[in-house]
Amino acid sequence: MNPSHIEHIGIAVKSLDDAITYYENVLGLKCYAIEEVKDQKVRTAFFVVGQTKIELLESTDPEGPVGKFIDKNGEGLHHIAFAVENIEDCLRETEEKGIRLIDKIPRKGAEGLDIAFLHPKSTFGVLTELCEKK
Amino acid sequence: MNPSHIEHIGIAVKSLDDAITYYENVLGLKCYAIEEVKDQKVRTAFFVVGQTKIELLESTDPEGPVGKFIDKNGEGLHHIAFAVENIEDCLRETEEKGIRLIDKIPRKGAEGLDIAFLHPKSTFGVLTELCEKK
Repeated sequence: MNPSHIEHIGIAVKSLDDAITYYENVLGLKCYAIEEVKDQKVRTAFFVVGQTKIELLESTDPEGPVGKFIDKNGEGLHHIAFAVENIEDCLRETEEKGIRLIDKIPRKGAEGLDIAFLHPKSTFGVLTELCEKK
Repeated sequence: MNPSHIEHIGIAVKSLDDAITYYENVLGLKCYAIEEVKDQKVRTAFFVVGQTKIELLESTDPEGPVGKFIDKNGEGLHHIAFAVENIEDCLRETEEKGIRLIDKIPRKGAEGLDIAFLHPKSTFGVLTELCEKK
């Protein structure tokens, strides 16, 4: 697979506005985009730190994946996303190695990337996303 | 503060050996160092992905911070570390902004970096590390 870098780190928050204030005023990062991803039932806010983005995730529905995550775990680190090439090949090879896939076929994520998730039960507890900018 | 990049992502695992196999054989990363950090009661394994390292953390003591984390949450994402300059100034400014510090003075972490943690109760649930290579 050989990912080139960490594309982003997803962080579940209760309030996008409150968390944006912290990331801007304390860490000194700049929110450059807010985007709703209806498919995932989240509103997202993006920051750049070097090669990597911080993606804050606020649930728009308590029954959505981030709503359920916060209900169970509270706010905090949610997933990491690796930048890959040929995401379809990566998914096929990953499944052949016995890893459980959440998405067998890539779908569209935030910022128009092709994305797919690996199941945390196969990845030592880390919800892991692959993404490719086509 | 203006961190230059994500220095590393810390991931708590039960077995360093099992997790290293996954990161090498599935993700295609290469473990370049294993180091014990006695102060933190962990053994760590390091991988590079672009500008960022993956730091796997295996507890050497059930009463240590990673042992307690796994006992409560299971394996998974543990902390993120931002690369900063003038870490002492960053800590002073962060505290002045009302953020609770775990470490008021930097200490030595893995790979000889000066490190300090911010408390997750002040950082929207994300255990946040600042680190500086002096």
